[in-house]
Amino acid sequence: MLIIGESINGTIQKVGQAILDRNEPFLRELAKVQYECGAHFLDINAGVAGGNEVEDLCWLVKIVQKEVPIPLMIDSANPEALKAALSVYCHSEPPILNSISGEEEKWNKLFPVISETKCKIVVLLMDDHGIPKTIEERLGIAKKLYQNLVQADIPPDHIFFDILVLSVAVEPDAALVALETIKTIRLNFPQSHITCGVSNVSMGLPARKLINRTFLTMAIAAGLDTLLIDVRDQALMSSIYAGKALTNQDPYCLEYLKAYREKKILI
Amino acid sequence: MLIIGESINGTIQKVGQAILDRNEPFLRELAKVQYECGAHFLDINAGVAGGNEVEDLCWLVKIVQKEVPIPLMIDSANPEALKAALSVYCHSEPPILNSISGEEEKWNKLFPVISETKCKIVVLLMDDHGIPKTIEERLGIAKKLYQNLVQADIPPDHIFFDILVLSVAVEPDAALVALETIKTIRLNFPQSHITCGVSNVSMGLPARKLINRTFLTMAIAAGLDTLLIDVRDQALMSSIYAGKALTNQDPYCLEYLKAYREKKILI
Repeated sequence: MLIIGESINGTIQKVGQAILDRNEPFLRELAKVQYECGAHFLDINAGVAGGNEVEDLCWLVKIVQKEVPIPLMIDSANPEALKAALSVYCHSEPPILNSISGEEEKWNKLFPVISETKCKIVVLLMDDHGIPKTIEERLGIAKKLYQNLVQADIPPDHIFFDILVLSVAVEPDAALVALETIKTIRLNFPQSHITCGVSNVSMGLPARKLINRTFLTMAIAAGLDTLLIDVRDQALMSSIYAGKALTNQDPYCLEYLKAYREKKILI
Repeated sequence: MLIIGESINGTIQKVGQAILDRNEPFLRELAKVQYECGAHFLDINAGVAGGNEVEDLCWLVKIVQKEVPIPLMIDSANPEALKAALSVYCHSEPPILNSISGEEEKWNKLFPVISETKCKIVVLLMDDHGIPKTIEERLGIAKKLYQNLVQADIPPDHIFFDILVLSVAVEPDAALVALETIKTIRLNFPQSHITCGVSNVSMGLPARKLINRTFLTMAIAAGLDTLLIDVRDQALMSSIYAGKALTNQDPYCLEYLKAYREKKILI
């Protein structure tokens, strides 16, 4: 299971301001804390209103790499920003680009970057018609995009399908559809990975963290293997430790017991 | 989803002592609290060392019925105690007897009581060879016992299969096997119910409540519909409210929002 820290994101007000202000200590601390909380990758998003994404993203990638020894997920829809960020990226493990989709304009802009750099890539299961209602339509998009990527020599295990969960406050079967989509994608693309933006599921509800971590554990049981989350949320991380122990991803609970001894588990 | 309060159980020391002492206020309070916490049924177990189960169970059923307006699960392997308890049981909804299994001696002792009284019944998926390792063998036991019960005119929706989860500290795939068993039973017996003693899954581990409620939410997503739990555990109940909202058992989260307003949700 791959855990990606989501917190260096310019759309979060405090983080965006720190990017504009070139507040290096604040942002390096945010990288360090996420690394110490157990992140395997860090997502880096420099999308700030009033910023220059090409410069901002490059700067962010450089300072985060100075602070932590883990690889990065580079989060932008701007091909120039992506290319610039890749030119300063220096970890031995390839980065994950976040993200491409079946939307034609987005695909045409980003596909050349992906096929040229052979990065890992998040693939949103949507196209110009939006997020499909049915699992069959989502699978159809997955098959089409997978074929295009594999034909461009992207290995199957470099592909991370984002299954795009909606809010249960709006669509009562949103989480059930998401769980079925995870199972279907797992079955059809056993070598690829599955991720999703968990927090969408609770949009519009109170006590969102409870709904998010409850959905996350259901999703882990269904086959979600890549988590883009706030790793500083101790209750969420505790649920993940428990989820791994329960799905034989932590045989004999050794990792769980270690986390417990290190007082990382919230009961 | 049916929620059964598990706490009136003579094998819990304090409760056992209260039964022996005929401490009616203590036990009525325990019934009342569970009812107020949202139990739809209460499990009543009078198995105390040094007690007289026939008399104790009858007395317990009588005092609990005086306190709360909900039906009971009568929990005994003693046919005399069951018959005596049924003779004083007076709720309009039939009780659930807990439990029968494929063990020949147990079956022969209890089947006459069940077929005579037409109660609801918990069926443990095990026989004289113990708890089967494989899902196929468990399904085999379920099919055999289901057939016998239905032939005795027990309606399918009076049958509650207990899928008997083991500890993940001992068997790393115990929870996965339990989840697959739930899905298999749900598929094969769509009119019947599925329950399990959730707490076994964490036997031998620290922070058991976390593991239990994480497993419970996975099991709800797999099709578990009858929960025998400590309804006083607010974190567990919060997970159940979230679990129902996420599995379209609480459309538009109305029940979840009500629980939140009543300050029943732990974040």
